[in-house]
Amino acid sequence: MTQTPLAGIKVLDLTQIYQGPYATFLMAQAGAEVIKIEPPGGERLRPPAHARGSMAFAMLNANKLSITLNLKAEAARDLFLELVADADLVVENFGPGAMERLGLGWETLKTVNPRLIYVSGTGFGLSGPDHDLLAMDHTVQAAVGLLAATGGPDDPPTRAGGAPSDIMGGVHMYAGAMTALLGRHQTGEGTRVEVSMMDAMYFNLSTELSTLYATGKPPPKNRNRSPSTVVPYSIYRCSDGRYVAVICIQERHWHALAKLMGHPALVDDPRFSRKERFANEAELNRIVGEWMLGLPQEEAFALLREAKIPAAPVRRVQDVYGNAHMLARGSLIAANHPGMGEVYLPTSPLRFSNFNAAQYAFYPELGSANQMVLGERLGRDDETLAQLAEAGAI
Amino acid sequence: MTQTPLAGIKVLDLTQIYQGPYATFLMAQAGAEVIKIEPPGGERLRPPAHARGSMAFAMLNANKLSITLNLKAEAARDLFLELVADADLVVENFGPGAMERLGLGWETLKTVNPRLIYVSGTGFGLSGPDHDLLAMDHTVQAAVGLLAATGGPDDPPTRAGGAPSDIMGGVHMYAGAMTALLGRHQTGEGTRVEVSMMDAMYFNLSTELSTLYATGKPPPKNRNRSPSTVVPYSIYRCSDGRYVAVICIQERHWHALAKLMGHPALVDDPRFSRKERFANEAELNRIVGEWMLGLPQEEAFALLREAKIPAAPVRRVQDVYGNAHMLARGSLIAANHPGMGEVYLPTSPLRFSNFNAAQYAFYPELGSANQMVLGERLGRDDETLAQLAEAGAI
Repeated sequence: MTQTPLAGIKVLDLTQIYQGPYATFLMAQAGAEVIKIEPPGGERLRPPAHARGSMAFAMLNANKLSITLNLKAEAARDLFLELVADADLVVENFGPGAMERLGLGWETLKTVNPRLIYVSGTGFGLSGPDHDLLAMDHTVQAAVGLLAATGGPDDPPTRAGGAPSDIMGGVHMYAGAMTALLGRHQTGEGTRVEVSMMDAMYFNLSTELSTLYATGKPPPKNRNRSPSTVVPYSIYRCSDGRYVAVICIQERHWHALAKLMGHPALVDDPRFSRKERFANEAELNRIVGEWMLGLPQEEAFALLREAKIPAAPVRRVQDVYGNAHMLARGSLIAANHPGMGEVYLPTSPLRFSNFNAAQYAFYPELGSANQMVLGERLGRDDETLAQLAEAGAI
Repeated sequence: MTQTPLAGIKVLDLTQIYQGPYATFLMAQAGAEVIKIEPPGGERLRPPAHARGSMAFAMLNANKLSITLNLKAEAARDLFLELVADADLVVENFGPGAMERLGLGWETLKTVNPRLIYVSGTGFGLSGPDHDLLAMDHTVQAAVGLLAATGGPDDPPTRAGGAPSDIMGGVHMYAGAMTALLGRHQTGEGTRVEVSMMDAMYFNLSTELSTLYATGKPPPKNRNRSPSTVVPYSIYRCSDGRYVAVICIQERHWHALAKLMGHPALVDDPRFSRKERFANEAELNRIVGEWMLGLPQEEAFALLREAKIPAAPVRRVQDVYGNAHMLARGSLIAANHPGMGEVYLPTSPLRFSNFNAAQYAFYPELGSANQMVLGERLGRDDETLAQLAEAGAI
């Protein structure tokens, strides 16, 4: 274990909400210096001074430095360009064209620093007829077919939980940034990196697209499973009203389940052979469901686990927050934040046997690195910084 | 535009189904040489010889080479180790411990090639009490709280459409691989990279975790929106039975919507002020819903778009397949595959202004690179290859 994998990489982070901040969170945890540049009022997700704090903001902004720049003010843009000259990465997820309207588009920035890698995250990309559409996770879920693929057969379009378009977009932004840094090792030149949330989410529908292609018909919606032909594959209710998810991806899983339920002869029942099982799914689910309903969740899961059948307890968000497995392996840390109190915070999902991660640092207070970055690094004296603040530029 | 960003990078790809293959798909499209190593019967997702073809397999295996190795045979393991000596990356998403049981774990492979980067994708990671659990997208959705966060308030746990845990895991595997390659530039040493689908999916629940933290209570489930306080934020039915998704993230969006609906005075209605709107969401949704129900989807969306209100048509999977926007920008290509016929296939979501992508190549036929890789590169003559095939090793 020697160092962090991104030691020495300098990132200027103009991002907000979820998508872009997740990309720069991954950078910061991998050891890059991430300077989060916020408007003087703070990023949109940053909680107001006396509010309880935002878990999402805390999660996504760990290990970053914060400076304030009002990029609508010329003096702030000049400071930004000074930082760009020495940066490896600029990362932004503004609406389409916003950076160009500020006079800070890629075409401008690359003249300041030809080695610069500029990462743009948008809903629909920088080209194509829909590139100018405003986008949020919600509208991308609609546009890419996810709302229509979620819920039961008679349900109206249903939102997939979480913010998958945002986080999927964010990790693709990170992936593109890393790829561009590798490319720069070969060419010595920077590049613009472009990620569209819609492009990034297309692959999520691999099963639905496969069914459409194979049958010529859109797959029926199902609340309990994806449109594959694997059986048993469902969510079953337990005696305590909680649920367990099961998927018998291989024949041996089904055989183990039949044995576990005390019905080993079912594997020889022609209705439940490999070929016929999908057609008789309802009857098989009735049998499995009856067995599951006789056990509390924890016991059902323990038995399935012991029998090496792919299964998991259906956890609620309050069960996931502080999850024992994630805590044990350091994917979550228990911390005492001066403002937030006792909290669980996640670390980077990227782990390396031969590199260290950055030591976890709480999200920065607004502008807390102004002195270090604008003062010491760019050489502005206290009086100048006070004037810039007075003028609303920082 | 000079070259691909990953030119010269050699990948040994042991992956299957969705998670791992998405990681190596991104590598192949970025110009790495990806040798897909399949058992002699083909990867699990590969369609049988006379079947119609699998859209998911075609999507996720473009630009790869295919060789066959039965890693349970010693002769095949020896060939694999010869390839490892000259590889940059080994990528696998087998079940926990599978590579160790084959005698091909990271501890072994790094003695063969100290610069090797070994990428492991699993459901729950390589440590912690649940690390040995078998995992599929379905069970990870359960374990990480996504099933419980999807659907309406009275619905049982509901599956989020698509395979988000798989694809999210896969792009994190790619991201970790790129990070490790960058780290290797500094240290000269390889590393194991570890990605857990559960870790990667935790961030997806940022909003739900924020609500839990802020209120101390788990967020109510909602079919139409995430548990934030933004209003209007829903899915609305149109006169043709289709739907449009709308989210007014800023005040100006709500003002524009009120004007568009012909009710500009609503913005001064105290029930719909910034502070009160969330409490009166049902009434506001009734008003918006009534307006939307008077228009067909296409017209409603066009009006919302013109008024710069974040909105999108709720597309079905058959609307997304061949989507005009994605085709126009090259995110989808229309191709005529010799076996599959006329198909739309997606390209990498990672785009670079100053690097080329690999020219799109269809997924490989099983073992079609055996001669090139095992014959020419490793120097096995035809007789030896025939014997290996006869013995079931390739």
